[in-house]
This record gives sequence, structure tokens and C-alpha cells, in this order.
Amino acid sequence: MPLPRTWVRDADGSPYDVDNLPYGVVSTRGTGGDAARVGVRIGDRVLDLGAAARELRPEWTPLLTAPELNPLLAAGPARWAEVRAWVRTLLTDVAHASKLRLLGLDEVTCHLPVRVGDYVDFYASEHHATNIGRILRPDGAALAPNWKHLPVGYHGRAGSIVVSGTGVRRPTGQRKAPEADAPTFGPSTRLDIEAELGFVVGRSVPWGERVAVSDFERTVFGVAGINDWSARDIQAWEYVPLGPHLGKSFATTMSAWVTPLAALAVARVPVPGQDVALVEYLREDEPQGYDITVEVELNGTVVARAPYRSMYWSPAQMLAHLTVNGASLRAGDLYASGTISGPEPDQLGSLMELSAGGTRPFTAGGAQRTFLADGDEVVLHYSAPGARGRIGLGEVRGTILPAR
Amino acid sequence: MPLPRTWVRDADGSPYDVDNLPYGVVSTRGTGGDAARVGVRIGDRVLDLGAAARELRPEWTPLLTAPELNPLLAAGPARWAEVRAWVRTLLTDVAHASKLRLLGLDEVTCHLPVRVGDYVDFYASEHHATNIGRILRPDGAALAPNWKHLPVGYHGRAGSIVVSGTGVRRPTGQRKAPEADAPTFGPSTRLDIEAELGFVVGRSVPWGERVAVSDFERTVFGVAGINDWSARDIQAWEYVPLGPHLGKSFATTMSAWVTPLAALAVARVPVPGQDVALVEYLREDEPQGYDITVEVELNGTVVARAPYRSMYWSPAQMLAHLTVNGASLRAGDLYASGTISGPEPDQLGSLMELSAGGTRPFTAGGAQRTFLADGDEVVLHYSAPGARGRIGLGEVRGTILPAR
Repeated sequence: MPLPRTWVRDADGSPYDVDNLPYGVVSTRGTGGDAARVGVRIGDRVLDLGAAARELRPEWTPLLTAPELNPLLAAGPARWAEVRAWVRTLLTDVAHASKLRLLGLDEVTCHLPVRVGDYVDFYASEHHATNIGRILRPDGAALAPNWKHLPVGYHGRAGSIVVSGTGVRRPTGQRKAPEADAPTFGPSTRLDIEAELGFVVGRSVPWGERVAVSDFERTVFGVAGINDWSARDIQAWEYVPLGPHLGKSFATTMSAWVTPLAALAVARVPVPGQDVALVEYLREDEPQGYDITVEVELNGTVVARAPYRSMYWSPAQMLAHLTVNGASLRAGDLYASGTISGPEPDQLGSLMELSAGGTRPFTAGGAQRTFLADGDEVVLHYSAPGARGRIGLGEVRGTILPAR
Repeated sequence: MPLPRTWVRDADGSPYDVDNLPYGVVSTRGTGGDAARVGVRIGDRVLDLGAAARELRPEWTPLLTAPELNPLLAAGPARWAEVRAWVRTLLTDVAHASKLRLLGLDEVTCHLPVRVGDYVDFYASEHHATNIGRILRPDGAALAPNWKHLPVGYHGRAGSIVVSGTGVRRPTGQRKAPEADAPTFGPSTRLDIEAELGFVVGRSVPWGERVAVSDFERTVFGVAGINDWSARDIQAWEYVPLGPHLGKSFATTMSAWVTPLAALAVARVPVPGQDVALVEYLREDEPQGYDITVEVELNGTVVARAPYRSMYWSPAQMLAHLTVNGASLRAGDLYASGTISGPEPDQLGSLMELSAGGTRPFTAGGAQRTFLADGDEVVLHYSAPGARGRIGLGEVRGTILPAR
């Protein structure tokens, strides 16, 4: 059966073809602007889904005219499938063309797509956890004894999540050199990125229930790119014994586009292999990850290509762990993978790793670099195999502003 | 000047007199119930503030008829003072009596008073941190090197916060005995309480700004009781290196009543003394805490009286720390003190401490006890000195339900 073709000019065969169709929240630029509502990216354009619903599917306007994806998320997996099928029909049957409003990407402002309830950040890359463990705890085991028995994670600050393109102010805080008697205070001198993949929870799950690994696809709506900015100096001083706090809570950037899991069916791959017997709730017949690549671009130079397929824990296992104690889920909760690092030196998703803790500068744009300088621009580009070429999962962009 | 007297029967001179006036969110019990709205506790009654606003102050109905305190919080400190002054007038001038609706406490259902954005849990008691450090890390220093330089804290799960009276299901999870090769899975066997004081943020503060210690009283609306239930076995296995997660995220109980800071003016006391030079943003002319006592009642027996006045870090310092890196605040954010423990053996705010890590049972209701059993009821009673006797700050009640 031939794959469907879209009537949208230049979109057919692009990374944002009708096999992809990520959701975002947009408003039109210009005098006064208009109300933010749901849009779907197709090629270099955005289908105004809020307007389409008003015109063609009034019963779906509460889901598609909100300034956030949360009502659509909360509608559940059956509705997600219906909306996606409808959007594909709209964009492949040219009879609909005259009734729809397509906006240029340069005509819209993209807003944070999801009002995030709770944000949990995992630590699911064995390569990353090993690299960081060696740098931060050179005298101890790189991985803590629990690491292969459960997906280690912690709660991050939901209120600091911002949309791609937002400038990131260098945080100020305490740090202490190992040999110093007392901490000093000032702008972070070891500001870093963490290239991660985020999972947007759709279905609410009541307090006291659990989500089995097999419930992953009916609970998670889709994925987003995440840059979990990290101030390594602040983090190193504060994190014992209760974990990272101010070293992370100043900013987390999320892509403007949320790609539904339905678009990633051909990107599913087994995780590399789990070599420890797991307790029952984490057992998955064949734990599945995604063959998603994150290109890490610093001031225009790609400095790493981080392979999500190399992650140790599957997203279904992270979700099962998150809820095994009875914690509830809300539509709009977000959990992220932790930094994506592969086994090779050009597959590392943080500058901490790319520069060996700041001791071995790497080259970017002709300059020798370790941590982030003011004015640096970081762009994470996410892509995955699709039915006919690679699909785009949006980007996560941020420029470092000087400390206040 | 004589203190004002209320016309509400039996309220004058009670712990919920017109000097107190905590806010909650209530609905009326009975056929169908009605919409949740803001109420104020006076004696053993609740003033229906939503109804009063509709009748007497229609411009305030958006603040007082919502099913959460968030609109009132977001209105800011000038409005908080106006609303409080109005409520005092209503309750002291008998001319208003016929226009107001008073409900019996037994006629209403109390709802979670605040939709919590982010929840940060600190670790501000030197006695508690020392006791726990000795139990969990017997071979290391009880306090980490950072402890006296910054208020250590981490993010908890906002979506698991429930109102006083909600049953708490025993969580299930992984634990590992020190001598075991591998973890086991099952219901927690070391289920504990943490008696804490919570601070409800009123004013939103944009991303990138800081809140100075001197901004505390115009930023925080009031206090609430918090029981940060903790599964010590799950926590001990999971918490290295990223801090507590599932050992805490299953449930946190909040009092139904939020006491405005304005009611606690006479309860302010200096903190016991800080013996380390602090970096500038944490310096407070005289760090102030609150003389609030938490009675910890287990199955009807008071097993501890934890003194908030013994806490090392002031709430203004915690707030300044929370935002020094530019993290934003939203109306409805919550931060808690961490377990309140004093220097004496009957002033400990967790069973972990009361039972020396489960090794030295204590007596409650004639029984020898360590951690929580199914069916146990824990009630935390909060009180503070007021202008004419002690004022009540509500209670935090929870009964342990067996694991699923």
C-alpha cells in the first residue's frame, strides 16, 4: 500500500511529513497577537488545529483551542488516535485544503506545549552515569549498588520548565573548591547542558494504583526534547545527601513540539541488554527504547551525536518504577531520561563528559571549549527513523545570558 | 486597647479566635454536596467566605469562591491584609451576623486548600539531620560539609499531596538489607512520619529574579502542617546519589487550614543561633523562626512534642536559597521545613528517631512501637502562642491502609 501523501507544499518527504505530525501550542505574531491554541507541524508550516476544530469538529474545541496540550492529553489514548487520524485525513485529502489555516513557522510564536504537573528526571544511561560517577566520585564505584536494580531518578522543578528559544540566565549560587575552607558565591563557572528525552504523560492514574510496564503506550502521549541545564559547581557542593536542587532548578528547556508515540512505531528498538535479574514490576518481555538521535550543536558546530538507543532503562520501566509506590499521575506530568550518552567519545550528551570534567577541552567552532560561556547558543536536534526517511522531533534551543 | 471579641458562640478565647482565622476550602456535606469554596475557621465553625463575598463583596468573588486558595494567594499581600481585616470586622461586629453563613465543622468536607505547583522539602533541623545522619551513615560525619552553609533541600512530588484525613496506603517498593546480595520487593516495613511545617507561597516571582530574606513576609502567605510520610527501607536503598524519590513520593499530607503569617506575629522568635559565617544572600539581621509546637499523636498517645523554634534555618533563609539561582515562584508553591526535632528525646518528629532506627522501641498506648503498622492513626497537632492564649494551626491526620 503506498504511503499517503500530503497536499501541503514541500512537506511530502520532509522530516515533518504526515507520518510525523507533532503537536504544539502556537499564537500568531503581529499586532496584539491572538490566543494560543493547538497546532500541528507539517513541513515548515503549522496547521491551526484550534481553528480547524471550531470549523469542522466543534465537539473537539475544548481539546484543541486551549493554550496547552493538557486537555488533549487528558482525553486519553482512544481520542489521541482519533484526532491523529482526523489530522492525517485533513492533510492528505486536498478537498479539505480550502477550509484549513496553515501558518508559516516564522509567523507563529511557540509556547510551552504542556503545563507540567510533576517533573521527574531519571539517570538511565549507563554510559553517562558511569562517566559522571568517575568524575564526581573518583575514589568510589562509578555506579552506586542500586543503579542496575532500579531506574534512579529524582524530582526536578516543574515551574522552571521553559520552551525552546527562551534565553537562559546563568545561575548564581554557592560552590566550594575541594581544598577551600568555606564556600564562595557567584555566577556558576561550570554551566552545562544535559541532552535528554522527555516523556509526556497523558492519562491520569489515581493515587494508589500502579502502571505496569505493559501500560506504557496507553499512558504516555509522546516525547519531547529536553535540555536539563546544570550548574556543575553548584550541584557538586549541594547534592549530598538529598540530591541535586539549585544546580538544576534554574531552568529546563523543552522542545516546542511533542511527538506522539504513534509517530515513533518504526523507531522502537530493544534496549542494549540488562544483565541483572530484576524484581517483577520492572520485568518487560523485551524492554524497548527508541532509535532517536540527538545532535548537540554548540555555536553552530555539532559536538556530539547522542544515541537514545543506547539507554539502559526503557521508558516503560521508568514509568512503572515511578508509580510502583502508589504515586498518582496527572495528565501533563513529565519524566525525562537523564543525559543521553553513548559509548563513543562523540556520543556524549553533556559538556562535563565531553571535556572530562573540564580537564580536557574539546573543539567547537575552532575554539577550545569546556563549559558554557555567556552568549553561547546550544541547539539540540532530535530525529528518528520514520516510514520513509528520518522524521524530525523538533529542537531545543537556548542562549546563555549573563548572570544578573 | 481591649482585644476585639467575636459574636460567634464559644469562639471567643478558643484556639480559633479572631486573632487566628485560618483559611481552608470547604464544601457542605449531604445530598449531592455543593461547590467547594473558601472558608475561614472560627471556633468550631466555618465562615462561608465564598457566600459572604457574593453577598457583600462581589468584587472579591473570584478570590473566594474558587475550589482552592490559589486566586487569593495570587492577589498579593495588600489584598491578603484587606481580606483579613474584612473577615475580622464581619466576625466582631454583630450587625453582620444575620448576613453570614456559619457551618459546623462536622457539616463540611475540607478539601486540599492549595493546588501546589512545586513542593520543596528542606532539612532545616540540626537535631534531625544529625540524628538521621548517625543512623544512615554511622561511619561518616553526621552532617555533610554543606549543611551549615546552605539549607539543604530537594523537590518532592506535588501530585501526591493530600488533605488531612485522607487514608495513606502503605507503599510497596524495593529494599535491600546491607548483607543481602540483591534487593527484595514488597510493602515497606519501615513506614514513618515526618512532622514538618509547610510555607505556602503567595506571590508569584518571575523567572530570573531573587527573593531577598527581607521579602519573606510579602511573599509567603501562611503556614500549614505537613506530614511527609517516609518509607525508610525504600529510601535507604534508592537515595544515592540523587536523593529521596519513591521513599517519599507516595504521599504527603497537608493540614486543611492555612494560617496566615499575620496570625503568627507574636509567635516569631529568633532561631537558636547560626555559628558559621554565611554568604550574603542568607544573611538575616536576626533570623526569625516561629514558636510553633507540633504534638505527635500515635493511636491516641502523644509520643513527642516537636518544637519548631529549635530549627536551625529560618523560613526566610530557605526562601532566599530556593530562588537565589533565578528559579521562579508560583502562587501555590509549597516549601516545608523538614522534620522538626528538638534536642530532647521527647521532641523528635519521626519514628526513625524516636526508635533509634528501629532498634529501641518506644511506648505508645501501652504497646512497644517502632515503625507504623496498618491501621495506625497519626495526628499532628500544631499550635502557637497568640495574643490571648494559644492559637490552633489545625491538624494533620492520617491512618495507614494495608498495601495493595
